[in-house]
Amino acid sequence: LESGAFLPVRRMLNTLHAAEVAHLLESMPPKERHVLWGLLREERHGDILQYLGEEVRAAFLREMDPQALAAATEGLDVDDIVDILQDLPGAVIHEVLQSMDEQDRQRVAKALSYDEDTAGGLMNTDTLTVRADVTLDVVLRYLRLRGEIPEMTDNLIVVDRQDNYLGVLPLSDLLTRDPDLSVGEVMNTEVKPMPAELTASEVAARFERMDLVSSPVVDASGRLIGRITVDDVVDVIRDEAEHSLLGMAGLGEDEDTFAPILPSARRRAVWLGINLLTAFAAAWVIGLFEKTIAQVVALAVLMPIVASMGGIAGSQTLTLAIRAMALGQLVESNVRWLVFKELAVVALNSLVWAAVVAAVAVWWFGDPRLGWLIAAAIVINLVIAALSGVLLPLAMRRMGIDPALAGSVVLTTVTDVVGFFAFLGLATLFLL
Amino acid sequence: LESGAFLPVRRMLNTLHAAEVAHLLESMPPKERHVLWGLLREERHGDILQYLGEEVRAAFLREMDPQALAAATEGLDVDDIVDILQDLPGAVIHEVLQSMDEQDRQRVAKALSYDEDTAGGLMNTDTLTVRADVTLDVVLRYLRLRGEIPEMTDNLIVVDRQDNYLGVLPLSDLLTRDPDLSVGEVMNTEVKPMPAELTASEVAARFERMDLVSSPVVDASGRLIGRITVDDVVDVIRDEAEHSLLGMAGLGEDEDTFAPILPSARRRAVWLGINLLTAFAAAWVIGLFEKTIAQVVALAVLMPIVASMGGIAGSQTLTLAIRAMALGQLVESNVRWLVFKELAVVALNSLVWAAVVAAVAVWWFGDPRLGWLIAAAIVINLVIAALSGVLLPLAMRRMGIDPALAGSVVLTTVTDVVGFFAFLGLATLFLL
Repeated sequence: LESGAFLPVRRMLNTLHAAEVAHLLESMPPKERHVLWGLLREERHGDILQYLGEEVRAAFLREMDPQALAAATEGLDVDDIVDILQDLPGAVIHEVLQSMDEQDRQRVAKALSYDEDTAGGLMNTDTLTVRADVTLDVVLRYLRLRGEIPEMTDNLIVVDRQDNYLGVLPLSDLLTRDPDLSVGEVMNTEVKPMPAELTASEVAARFERMDLVSSPVVDASGRLIGRITVDDVVDVIRDEAEHSLLGMAGLGEDEDTFAPILPSARRRAVWLGINLLTAFAAAWVIGLFEKTIAQVVALAVLMPIVASMGGIAGSQTLTLAIRAMALGQLVESNVRWLVFKELAVVALNSLVWAAVVAAVAVWWFGDPRLGWLIAAAIVINLVIAALSGVLLPLAMRRMGIDPALAGSVVLTTVTDVVGFFAFLGLATLFLL
Repeated sequence: LESGAFLPVRRMLNTLHAAEVAHLLESMPPKERHVLWGLLREERHGDILQYLGEEVRAAFLREMDPQALAAATEGLDVDDIVDILQDLPGAVIHEVLQSMDEQDRQRVAKALSYDEDTAGGLMNTDTLTVRADVTLDVVLRYLRLRGEIPEMTDNLIVVDRQDNYLGVLPLSDLLTRDPDLSVGEVMNTEVKPMPAELTASEVAARFERMDLVSSPVVDASGRLIGRITVDDVVDVIRDEAEHSLLGMAGLGEDEDTFAPILPSARRRAVWLGINLLTAFAAAWVIGLFEKTIAQVVALAVLMPIVASMGGIAGSQTLTLAIRAMALGQLVESNVRWLVFKELAVVALNSLVWAAVVAAVAVWWFGDPRLGWLIAAAIVINLVIAALSGVLLPLAMRRMGIDPALAGSVVLTTVTDVVGFFAFLGLATLFLL
């Protein structure tokens, strides 16, 4: 690409799957991205857009006019169109909708009315429905006439005249059961449809637990309005996982590795600023004991150890608790057990490591009192760290704050402040 | 459960899906788990085992004898049996294999020969194959005779007489195309099979990119040996994500939230110990400047700020780099660009926040030299942090170390040591 050999690049691009082109684009710095994007045939743009991460996609979308967008999204699945449109301003969405044909417009508008992170936002409207009273043979002939079955269709969906969901007819049953049987006799009524308001993470959990390929989606009155396919669920799972991972470092959910410098810097500056407050809080606590430190400088040498041990132990408990909450394992009835277990784990560990640190401190500075002090401070800080690790995320959830985002900052503040305060406070009491 | 009302519990358990029972078990402390496990009918044990996390499963497996295990795994898919057996000692596996029927034994033994984290380890052997020269009509009649199609079958696999992979025949084509056409005319030859040695994460990436439901697996000579289904890929993606998240806190890949106290404590003790070495390294650096601190105690108050800012900025870059590596976005050719971008981002941010910290320091301690010193130290530490954030994980990967596990410890060591050294060193040079 750098050498300006566009023709072979263009030829290669045409042989690649849209998802692979998207991956290539995401692995490039912004400038190269635009060159590559320009080399692509325009009719492929829509197909590729759906595979791009939100941030990279948004950058390309900003440069496209509504007509180009409508043209690019032509032929895409409704859920993918919705996915692309969701991040655009209302006026642009309106224009794009205007340039679609009537049926598509209605479908897209309906799907757009649901929150992105619900079953309704994930669903596609390409359902293949059949009635319960026809025979499998009729269904087989209908499919042959139709000539096409939407991708990821493992079931036909059985509905009544009012589109009320009744059950599913697996393609495998259609292929293996007696063609003279009616759909009603063969259909599986045990598959429960998902309500449109179900959260995306609950949708993902059900797909995982039940090993689903697709699932019908119904509205509040039980009418079929669409279906969710496993490919979109995979995206939800990946996003959820990245959300926890990136969130802990204060990065955006869909952070673009090769984002332009200024937006990246701005986003990260906020996180650094929040953490700076934490650091100032810790500094303020140390400042309270300036006189103590002036008399025993060894305290300044040893105090980061107390804070850091608390931070590590606390973040272990916090990570475990956040994951348990995400998996739906943490409920009212077992919180007490978890608190007890984490306290026990940390108590055992704090005794072991406090002894080690104490021994090193005594050997280093030759003052046995320093050993006792630092051991006590470590035990106190680790116990508080374990308690906060479980209770903080629970409290945050109750307050509607996402613990994956704010948990680690608050926890570090607690362990720093408690660590410095315990160590320097005890030293002031017993050493001076 | 606590009240001892076993009968209603047992009745409720029987109505639950195996995956839901597994989820229930995972959400319980160890003692309750065993009570519940005992309440389950024995023939359900195998079905439930496959849905349990590795650690919880291992605990139950330890208590079952090989006969019970063989009985429990009867009727399960080969890949699920393999999944369960993989963690057992060789002798037990041997015994379980002995009590299986011949066909199952061969299949399981073959699948066990592949590494757990490869396509071979993920695959199932329940493939439905057809020849290219028969007509669709023959296939349709064959399926009706067979009477059953394995779950998650979206394609029949087309092979020649020597079982060499030729292509796939989607069920949807089977249902919609002219029955007089031959399989060879209809089959899709663009779907590339996955080699058995492909890593699990590359398998997952291909499923995500291509929106697959299932994929054929071939050996080195191109012979079909099994297929991978999307439900197992979803597990890989979930595991990968958890690996990064839990690994950063030094927790096990499949850490059981309600693990017994002693094993938990032992595992975490190791992590705390490793981090303690980091803390001692930082303390040692501070110790070098004891005399400086004794003269200017303000340094002790401010020094955690320098270290902490470096740690935060570095972990942002590190998280981004680790994720980019996991997604396959980070290659030789764009490392330089990423280093440049991260340096630019951090340079901008360090200037802003260094100024803020400097202003606070001057206001707090009334010494303008302190402001200059801490600003310079922060800029130095943040630049080093950004550099390490990109280059450390790359170096670790080259050395065969998993950066998701060791990255954050090493990075914190760097930012602590550099932070304290820069700040206290500059102070010693210019303040005394």
